[in-house]
Formats: sequence, C-alpha cells, structure tokens
Amino acid sequence: MISFKHYQIILLTLFLVFTSCKDTTVQTDLKVLDTQHPSLILTKQGVKDIRAQLGNIPIFDKTLENVKAEIDAEIELGIETPIPVDYSGGYTHVRHKRNMVVLQKAGVLYQILDDEKYAKYVKDMLMQYEEMYKTLPLHPKTRSYARGKLFWQCLNDSNWLVYVSQAYDCVYNYLSEEERNTLETNLFRPFADHISINSPQFYQRVHNHSTWGNAAVGMIGLVMNDQELIERALYGIKDVGLDKTAKDDDGGFLNKNGKAGFLANIEEPFSPDGYYNEGPYYQRYAMYPFLIFAEGLHNVKPELKIFEYKEGVLLKSINTLLNLSDADGEFFTLNDGQKGMSYYNNALVTAVDISYHFGAQDPGLLSIASAQDRVLLDNSGLAVALGIKNDKARPFNKKSINLSDGSNGKQGGVAVLRNKDIELVFKYTAQGSSHGHYDKLSYSLYENGEEILQDYGLSRFVNIEQKGGGNYLKENKTWAKQTIAHNTVIQNETSHFNGKYEIGSQYHSVLNYFSTENDNVQVVSAKENNAYPGTEMLRTMAIIKDEDFEKPYMLDIMKVTSNKANKYDFPYYFLGQVIQTNFIYKTPNTLNTLGNKNGYQHLYVEGIAKALNENSKLLWLNKGKFYTLTSVTNSEDELMFTRIGANDPEFNLRREAAIMLRRKNTKNTLFVSTIEAHGAYSPVTESAVNSNSSIKELNIVLDTEDYTAIEIVNVNGNTKLFITANINTSKEAKHTLKINDKNYEWSDSYYFK
Amino acid sequence: MISFKHYQIILLTLFLVFTSCKDTTVQTDLKVLDTQHPSLILTKQGVKDIRAQLGNIPIFDKTLENVKAEIDAEIELGIETPIPVDYSGGYTHVRHKRNMVVLQKAGVLYQILDDEKYAKYVKDMLMQYEEMYKTLPLHPKTRSYARGKLFWQCLNDSNWLVYVSQAYDCVYNYLSEEERNTLETNLFRPFADHISINSPQFYQRVHNHSTWGNAAVGMIGLVMNDQELIERALYGIKDVGLDKTAKDDDGGFLNKNGKAGFLANIEEPFSPDGYYNEGPYYQRYAMYPFLIFAEGLHNVKPELKIFEYKEGVLLKSINTLLNLSDADGEFFTLNDGQKGMSYYNNALVTAVDISYHFGAQDPGLLSIASAQDRVLLDNSGLAVALGIKNDKARPFNKKSINLSDGSNGKQGGVAVLRNKDIELVFKYTAQGSSHGHYDKLSYSLYENGEEILQDYGLSRFVNIEQKGGGNYLKENKTWAKQTIAHNTVIQNETSHFNGKYEIGSQYHSVLNYFSTENDNVQVVSAKENNAYPGTEMLRTMAIIKDEDFEKPYMLDIMKVTSNKANKYDFPYYFLGQVIQTNFIYKTPNTLNTLGNKNGYQHLYVEGIAKALNENSKLLWLNKGKFYTLTSVTNSEDELMFTRIGANDPEFNLRREAAIMLRRKNTKNTLFVSTIEAHGAYSPVTESAVNSNSSIKELNIVLDTEDYTAIEIVNVNGNTKLFITANINTSKEAKHTLKINDKNYEWSDSYYFK
Repeated sequence: MISFKHYQIILLTLFLVFTSCKDTTVQTDLKVLDTQHPSLILTKQGVKDIRAQLGNIPIFDKTLENVKAEIDAEIELGIETPIPVDYSGGYTHVRHKRNMVVLQKAGVLYQILDDEKYAKYVKDMLMQYEEMYKTLPLHPKTRSYARGKLFWQCLNDSNWLVYVSQAYDCVYNYLSEEERNTLETNLFRPFADHISINSPQFYQRVHNHSTWGNAAVGMIGLVMNDQELIERALYGIKDVGLDKTAKDDDGGFLNKNGKAGFLANIEEPFSPDGYYNEGPYYQRYAMYPFLIFAEGLHNVKPELKIFEYKEGVLLKSINTLLNLSDADGEFFTLNDGQKGMSYYNNALVTAVDISYHFGAQDPGLLSIASAQDRVLLDNSGLAVALGIKNDKARPFNKKSINLSDGSNGKQGGVAVLRNKDIELVFKYTAQGSSHGHYDKLSYSLYENGEEILQDYGLSRFVNIEQKGGGNYLKENKTWAKQTIAHNTVIQNETSHFNGKYEIGSQYHSVLNYFSTENDNVQVVSAKENNAYPGTEMLRTMAIIKDEDFEKPYMLDIMKVTSNKANKYDFPYYFLGQVIQTNFIYKTPNTLNTLGNKNGYQHLYVEGIAKALNENSKLLWLNKGKFYTLTSVTNSEDELMFTRIGANDPEFNLRREAAIMLRRKNTKNTLFVSTIEAHGAYSPVTESAVNSNSSIKELNIVLDTEDYTAIEIVNVNGNTKLFITANINTSKEAKHTLKINDKNYEWSDSYYFK
Repeated sequence: MISFKHYQIILLTLFLVFTSCKDTTVQTDLKVLDTQHPSLILTKQGVKDIRAQLGNIPIFDKTLENVKAEIDAEIELGIETPIPVDYSGGYTHVRHKRNMVVLQKAGVLYQILDDEKYAKYVKDMLMQYEEMYKTLPLHPKTRSYARGKLFWQCLNDSNWLVYVSQAYDCVYNYLSEEERNTLETNLFRPFADHISINSPQFYQRVHNHSTWGNAAVGMIGLVMNDQELIERALYGIKDVGLDKTAKDDDGGFLNKNGKAGFLANIEEPFSPDGYYNEGPYYQRYAMYPFLIFAEGLHNVKPELKIFEYKEGVLLKSINTLLNLSDADGEFFTLNDGQKGMSYYNNALVTAVDISYHFGAQDPGLLSIASAQDRVLLDNSGLAVALGIKNDKARPFNKKSINLSDGSNGKQGGVAVLRNKDIELVFKYTAQGSSHGHYDKLSYSLYENGEEILQDYGLSRFVNIEQKGGGNYLKENKTWAKQTIAHNTVIQNETSHFNGKYEIGSQYHSVLNYFSTENDNVQVVSAKENNAYPGTEMLRTMAIIKDEDFEKPYMLDIMKVTSNKANKYDFPYYFLGQVIQTNFIYKTPNTLNTLGNKNGYQHLYVEGIAKALNENSKLLWLNKGKFYTLTSVTNSEDELMFTRIGANDPEFNLRREAAIMLRRKNTKNTLFVSTIEAHGAYSPVTESAVNSNSSIKELNIVLDTEDYTAIEIVNVNGNTKLFITANINTSKEAKHTLKINDKNYEWSDSYYFK
C-alpha cells in the first residue's frame, strides 16, 4: 500500500504549483463567459426550446411538475449542511447526498421556470457549503483508501461535484462575480483538487471510481472554463506515478498500467461491443458520469467529438447495458451486482435520453423512456418527450447477443441466449476488475424476468447503514466471489485461480463458437484453460425450442479434461420448492457444513443421495412455474442438497438452496444436463398445468476430443440428436461423423435434428 | 371407523326402496316441466334479459367472449372421458374436473347464444359419461374415507355434479324425453345416490364436504324435479345414523350431533356474523355450492326464502369473507389455508355477483367485480355488469371488524384491526372443525397485503400430484397445526389442548373487549383458559397511530397466569432478512433441532442469545420495507433464531425464520412487545429511508390482576401510556388508577395518552 504521507507530500507540491497559476486565467475568461451560461447540460438554446414546448410535452411536463413539487418541499424544509460524520446510510451522508441532487434540480428549475427563488436557494446552499468546506478536514471515518471531506470516501465527494457543477452552471449568471470568485476559490477548486491531486490513488486509475472523479473535475472545469481542470479530467494528473502493485479496498490494483483520465476510462474498460468489464451493475453506476460529462463536453467542447470516441463506444455501451437486463429491466447479476437494480434507475434515464438524442433516435429507446415515466430536464429529455408524444415509440426488442470483453474485444465475453421468455446468460469474460467473481463459464437462467437458476450477486446491503455501513460485507469475499457460489464446475473444493485476483486478472476464457442464426437452436460454446492449471473446461450451452416441448429448454454440456484425477462439484442454484426427485435422498437430523473454506463453509448439507445410473431428475416449483433439471449421472455420483447460510454470524446471507452433483476421483468427464421450464400453478385456481418433465431420457451417445453428441428423448418417444464440435468450429467447416453406424454430415459448429 | 361393508348393506337397502318408487313421479312431472328449462341458475326470463343487453354490457360481453373462445377451443379438441385412475393433479382427475367446467359453460353458451353446437357438445359428452358410469366401479385409489367413482373422493364427484346439473338444465329442452330418461336413470340418479345414500360418512355431516354433496344432490334434484332428492339435499338422508365418534381423513368427527343436510350446513358452521368456523380458505371453497344451490333454490323454490334463512346469513357471510382478505384480496391464512387464495377465485365471482344481485346492491361489490374482471353468465352477472356500466362502482372499504364464531355467535371470534396499510388478524375462535389449528390467541400482521408476521398456513400443495397426491401432507399435522407454528405462547413445549382435537373442540376463547371507536387506537383483548389447564392467557393487542411514528404500530400484551412454574416460548414468525439486533447472539456451526415433538422437531436453532435487561430489539427488511420488534425482556430470558425445515424428509416445508423468546421456570408473566413498520429500501435508487425504530423504550409500569400499564417512549422523548383493563371491561365501567403517584381516571376498557 502507498502511504498517505507519501501522497500528501507529492500532492501538496502539485497543488501549490497549480494554484499559483490558476486564478488569473479564470478571472479573465469569466467576463467573456458571463453570457454563455448555462452551457454544460442545459444550454441557452436548449432552455429556449424547452420553454417553447412546455405544457405540450406530457412526459416532460410531468417530470417537471414532480421535480418542482419535490424541490418546493425541500425549500420549505430549509437548508441543512451538517458537519460530516457518518458512513453510507448515516444521517450526514444521506443529507449531503440528498443536497447534491436537490441543488442540481433546483438549478434546472431556475433555468426552465425562470423563478429566482430556485437560484437563491442554490446560491444560499452553495454559500453554506463554501463556509463549511474552507476549513473542513478529512472525513473522520477512516475505512476508505481515499477519504473524502463531505463523505467518507472521495467517490461520494465526486458524486457530489458532478451534480453540483450542473447547479453552479445553472445559477452562474445569477451570481455576482464576487460570489463566483468566493465559491470557486474556497469550494470548487479545492474540492476538485482534493479528489484529484490530493487523492491520486483514487483519481489516477482506470476504474469506475476514477470515472466519477474525472467527470467531477471535468464538469466543474467546464463551468469554470478552467482548462487545467479539463485537461486533468481528460488525461489524468500530469506526472504522477503510482505504485503499480498497490491495491484498493476491493482488492483491485490501483493502477497497474499507469493509464488515467476520462479518455483512458472509456478506452480501457469498454470492449468494442460496449461491454463494461465490471459488468452491468457497475456499468450502470459508471454510466451517469460517463454520459453526463460527455454531454457537457459535447456542448462546451464539440470539437472533441466525444460521442464518436472509440467508434462511438459510449452510446454503443448503452444499448449493450439495456441488453444485459431481464424481461423486467433488471440487470443480470454478473460479478458484484445487487439484485433488483434496473433500467428504472436514474442513471438509465440519463443513458436512454442521451442515447436517443445524441445517437440514432432508436424508437425502441422511447418505449423504455415511457416505462421509466420520466425524462432528463434538458434537450435530450425534450427530444425523447417529443418522440413519445409523436407516437414514435416502438418495443425495445432484446435479442440473443454475444458481447466481447476487453478493451480490444479479445478477452472472452458474455453471451445472452434468448428464446421467448427464456434467457440464458453465459459468462466467459476476463476477471472483471476488482468486482469480478471467480466464476469461469458460469451461467444464470431466467424466465420472463424471474430467476430459474440464480447468480447469487454481491453480499452487500448497499446504503443500509446497519449492515456494515452499507459497504461490502466480508461474505462477499468468503462466499459471493467464490466459485462454489456459482453455476459452474469446482475442482477439488478450490476456487478458480485459487481465488487470487493477481492470477485471475491475467486470464480470460475463449469463445469456441456462438450461433444464433437458427431461432430455434441458439448455442454458445467457450473454453477455459487457466482456472485450474492442467484442467481444460469446455462448456457448450444451448436454448432449444422443440415442438415436443411447451417452452424452450436449456441443454448444458460441460466437458472437463484434466491431467490428473480430481473431485468435481457441479452446483445448480435453483430457487423455490422441491417438488419431486427420481432419486432417493436422505436428510440429516443435524445440519453440517459442506466444507471449511473457499465458500464451502457457508453451505449446509440438507440432503444426500447416490445418483441414479443414467438420469437424475429434480422437479421444483418457483413463483407458480415448474422446472425440471435432468442430469446424466452414474451410480458413483453423489447428489447433495445444500443451503446457503452456514458460518454467517450476522445473517448476511440469503437462505437459498442448490442441488450439487459431486463426481470424485475422475480425470476427464462430461456433465450433461437440461433444464426445462414447464407448466404453471396458481394458488387462486389451484390448478397445476403441465407439471411434469417432457424429457424421458438424456443420453451421451458420443464423446471424443472432436465431438460430443447428446440424445434427447421426449416422453412422446421422439428423439433429437445434438452434436457439438469441440474443436475446428469455424462456420465454414464441414463435419462428418459416424455414430452407431449412422453417418452424420453437416456444416456449422453444431448439429441438431 | 365405520366399515364400508356396513354402509353398503344399509345403503343398498335404502337405494332399492327409493328407486322403486321414484321413476313414475319423475316421469309424470317431466311433461309439465318441459317448457320450464332453464330454471336453475339461468331462467327463461333471465336469458331473455341477457340477450336483450348483449353487446351493451362490457364486462359481461367480455366474459362471454372469453368463455366462448375457451369452449370453442375445447370443442375443437374433442371429448375425452377417460376411465378414472388418478389422484388429484393426475391426468384423469384433471380431465374430469375440466369436463365439468366445460359442460357447465357450454350449457350456458347454448342458452345465451342459442347455438345448437353447444347443446350437441353437452349432450354428446353426457352420453359418454352415461355409457361409462353405468358400469363404473369405485375409483381405484383407496386413500379416501369416501371414495367416489369419477374421482378418488366423493367430494370431487360432488363438485362434478354441481356443475353438470347446470349443464343438464341448460340442454334439458334440447334433449328428447328418451335421452333424458337414459341420462337420469343411468347417470344422474345413481350418481346422486352414490355420493349420498352410498356414502353417508361423507354426505350426512356438517362439513364443507357435505355441503358440496348436498348441493350436488339438490341441484340435480331441482333439474329433475325430484322431490326426494331435494328433500335429501335440504335435510339429509332420512333415518341414517352414524357412529358419532368416527373421524374423517382430517381427524374431524364424522357426525357428532347427528345433524345433516344443506340447511344444517348453513345453520351450524356460520356464526350470526357470517364467520365460517373453518376459516376463510374453506369458506371460499364451500361458498360456491352454498350460493349456487341457493340461487337454484331461489329460482325453483322461492317459497323457501333461502337467502333469508338464519337472518340472511348466506349473503352476510360473503361480506364477512371479503373482510377476511388482505389489501391484495388474499384471504388471511387462519387454520388450514393455502396462501395466495383470493377473491379472484371463481367461487368469489359467484359470491360477489350473487351478493350484489340478491342482496342490497352494495356498490362496493362492483369494484371487486371490476377487479375480478368477469361476471357470472346469469342474471346476477347481468345485474353486476349493468351496475358497473352505469358507474355505480365504489371502493369496497374494509374496516376493523370483530366476527363472532359459533352457530350461536358465542364461541369466541376473529378480530381484524385495520389502520392505513396495517392489518392485524387476531384469532380467539373455537377449534375450527377438523381444519382448525392449535393456535389460541394467535395473530398475523400485514402491511398492504404483505405479511409482516406470518401464519404458516397449511402444509399441502393443493392439486400438485407429485406432493402426496395434492393432499394434506403429514407435516400439516406435525408442523402446521401445532402451536409452535404460530405467533402465540407455548407452555412446556406442548401444543394447546395437547394437540388433541377431541379436547380442543370442546372449548373456545372469550372476548375481553373490542374497541375501534377511536380511529387512532384500535384494541382487541381476549382470554383463553383451557388450552393449558391451570394456566390463563389474556392477550390484548392494539394498533396505534401516533404522530411520532411514520406508520401505525402494533402493541402486544400477553398476560399469563398459572398455578405452577412453566417454560414459556413466544415466537415471532417474521419474514425477510435480519438487519440488526441490539443483543449479541451466537450462531452455531451445526444446526440442531429445537426439540423432538409437537412441531419443535421441525425447527432448527440458528442463533442463541441472552436477552437484554429491559428491551431486546430485532430489525429486519422484507420486500423493501423495514420492521422492528421491540420486546420487554429480562436478563434471564433467552432469544433464539429458528428456521423451519428440520425433519422434513421430502422438502415439504418452507425454510422460513422466527425469533423466539424463551422464559423458563416462571409462573405468572407478561410478554410485551411492539412491532413497527417503518421506512423503505429500493434496490433501484439504493436509498434506505427511515430505517430505524422510533421506539426508545418500552416499559411495563404496572401489572395487577385488574390492570396492565405499558409506557412507550419515542426516540423524540415523547412518552405515551397504554393501560388495559384485564377484568370488568364493560364500556360503561369507570376506572381510576394510581401509578407512580399520578392518578388516572377514564371510562372505556383501555386508556391511551
């Protein structure tokens, strides 16, 4: 770790250098700029356009009315800027967080409604902040690697400045030059400096934290027309080097390759397909500063062509993010992700509106904006409101999609297979930065927005102060990140890469093939050779719509090849109530843990069975739908019912179940299973419809280095054959194969008939 | 148990007697009646009125359209009447159950649309049934105490006849006399006889099963104009005595007092307030035969004035049933009740429409009918459709209500306290027949339709064949009915009445007082002296709206007086995630059961704590809302976190939690607690609002034989005093009491200020 003392010495020096040359420049420019505000998110022309349409743009009018009611109520309550003392969720934290939003909204109301009371309110609160900030020490809570002043971490301070910059822009012309000087000298400039040159371990990175920091510095720089701050935002702090081996609170490297600044933060974490390496939950979090600063840059510095940067990846990433949500708009919980976060979040209102306005006016975005039921109170929100008003909205159709990971798009990826209500999310990415989980080739499965097989997500109650200050809980590391917490294979009870970030972050999985041309058979296949040295895993997953089945079903083929005998565990994190098994299990009278480390210590064993020779089946019911897992097993296999919640001294974990297949003392092996969604149960009609599996048999008919062939026999007696190519999977390749004296010929990576 | 042989001899005799004198009567009447059909539910005039309004009554038109589409599709599929083999949920069960509904609907369509294809379809299917039934043996499944022929139990056969009688009535005039003779001789008459004289153990009782039987026999009797069947329906089988000590599958007495027939089934189970002794789930189930047969009687035998019987209790009971539902219309799970059953069930469409039409045209019922979005396709449905069309619908306002139990209204009752979104359901009833639970003075608590403290309900997956044929599971007896499964006090780890139905059914709890005049302080108080001989329990529960609190909170005072020292357990079945406690607890590494019988064997102990001297607090989060339990404890008390699911070899139980207060070696004691609902958490905004309890202290300031006084100190420092009168609680009584040298004077059963 880099010590604080060390930083402070470097940065105090930098600070002195910069401040000495800053004031005069700004003073000069101010006079010229007086008439140019607002210019950041709202613009003079934009305000004019909005005012011309008011009363005539329903979703905008409604948003405005709600914001006005909200802010009028806040003004009524008076201004409070308490001395900071709390962690997330505590009073002072919540108050300052609320203030930043209120300031931003009040500023916008002043511009749109032209009512001085809002400007005065903003001014008064800013002045109170100025009065406090000029003597404010570091926040008293010491847990963060980069402590803020208003908040316990620089991250939250940055959030504040991103919002408050917008408020300042809105009231800029309302303030006297003297007032502006006071604010800039005592509040904004030192504030920007604290989160950047005083906190390079936070600022000078490629990380969502830094993106907030960059945007904060850049946005106040744009308002103040402070070129030095703008440069610092875009390119990072000049001439600051960080220890490349140091880590942050989450275990991520602080700055491994020395890159920094807003542009590097676009460059690095986004793949060319717009996938953000930490996953959708953090992309959502980072989206706001990315886009709001980009909008500001677009308005103030159009010559930068920020929306075209890296082939337009910022706008592309919005489409990607929307595609990483389920039928209810909730983001798939890849890596650290809190369940329930969705495109109803404010950041996504920003994203959707900006994407519509500055992008290609995709009418699908309008239907999402309609569902969000509010818009940004700026030009982009106006464009969306007009689009909706003019009946341009169309459904946003999510399709199967394959998204590359890595800044060059060559570090694995994420595939989403979709057919009717079934969605399969298959992860073969790189590590995913410090928020990554050790879950190579893992997946989750959804039906119409409900989880069938879940990804646990993070272990954290974000902003619930009573749960560890609202921060990551230790179970995030001991459980949520571990391999056993995921729907993938675990070798010898150890996590992938031994659960070591230093190792995991060197590797990524590799796509074998992705094929979705046939609507009825959508397939993704990928391999992982590094999670367990000496062991290769090749997983092929398909969503198949077959007329003999009510709904599309999932076929999962995990081929494991190792240079030694191992114990393999293969869990399925189903949700709901066990209805039936075709195997006999025993339930213990006392519950013991499955193991004592690598996440195993958090699982109780609730049932144990010897698997059946051929197929073992589990039927369960969740939220009124039936599901059946059919797995090819042999009589040496063990099946275990497990439940999360052991060694959980503060009830941080959810008591949810899994069934786990255990195969011992095995070198090479194949895990083959299907999951069917079928039927329904209603407690109102009390009728159970199609409550049984449609699969009679699931058989491995061939498994070689080159091919694996699986036979699926329906209860009607119809048989289908699925053959996947394990190597040589180019689309053009011709395949011929003899199985049981029958010849199969096909071209494509798989065969299904 | 009465043997089947025994029955068969008696009943074969009865059968021969009756059939010999029947045929001629019916034949004579038939000619007269030919022109009088339909007459049962639809009437000739009713059909005329409906046809006149068609196309002009939106909810009726829509229902008709849906029913037509549904039946047209069924006709398309062809008729199937398989030989019966399955339990509930199995193919033949489901098919015959479906057929009965399809027949009823097709009959109605024939009448309303005057399209012969529906009549032909009904005729064809009836003839297929006739062909099968005349040689059909008893159903092969042997589990029922009264086996049917089409279904495994007479109950389902009765369901079938209730529906099919209506279909027969609709096509009566379409059939030739010969066809009618064939159907009546080979199908309907023997069918009615099988469920009645062949199955007196099923038919000759006061029980929801018998109500279905009575209605079935009566309705086909009304259509056939068979006075003997009608008499048998109304008054039971003549001259049949049953063993008064015999029991049914659920452990209920078969016929303890010798009463039987439809009128006795109205007389006995309904209290004068319309509370049905088995609780709302079974009332819902019984409602359909009660009301549809009543409608038939009203139409065919108006002189009986069936809707005025027992001071109009049938219609009154509908209002009662609606009041026993939560904000989402789901019935409170008193006794055996499956969660999720609601007034969206078809039986409640019948109930609401009939109640509106034959009752006082309560406009509140129209809003429920609107929510149900369908109506009966008869006169009552027409009346509702016209009411809705003419904008007469008003909200159905549920208020606090106290419902007496027992046919004379003197066997305890159920109270529901409501204030804003909070609903408290307090049970001080009699045993509740064979579906009753051992849960004296138990309660459940709801916020806006979500459970805060749950009543577990039944242990059964109704109609899910894979779970014990869809029938009651053994855990219903070993867990769901036991006292420990409820939010009440358990003495020495034994259930109330030792879990013995014979004992429990002799007693009922007694109301102390019920006071809801003050909207802000709603109180119910009741006592139970028989559950544990030598121990008296007096529970007083209040829902209090206090300006210092965001939402109304619950105050619970359980006063226990015993003639010896006991161990008391006091569980709270909360749902959701533990957020915080103010006491220190230990979580074991392996989970053991809490006990080995009386339901204790189904609970794991997940945490143990010594309680705090004064107040112990638990804060939890469920579905985005915070809740805090504050309990007055002393340092000798133990607190335990438990979880349901031990000794559950087939995963029949839900893995849900409780916190339990244990007080050992104590004679007289007082359990005092509050539950506050407060604040909210959204995973979309990630903000936690008002996430802390508003109660600083909860103190017992006085506890005598006459009075108990509780002090509630808010975090703002405001103090309120609640005094409840333990005896002499008439409204007129004047009370004076000195506490800590201060005099209190009031008149009413409680004091709050």
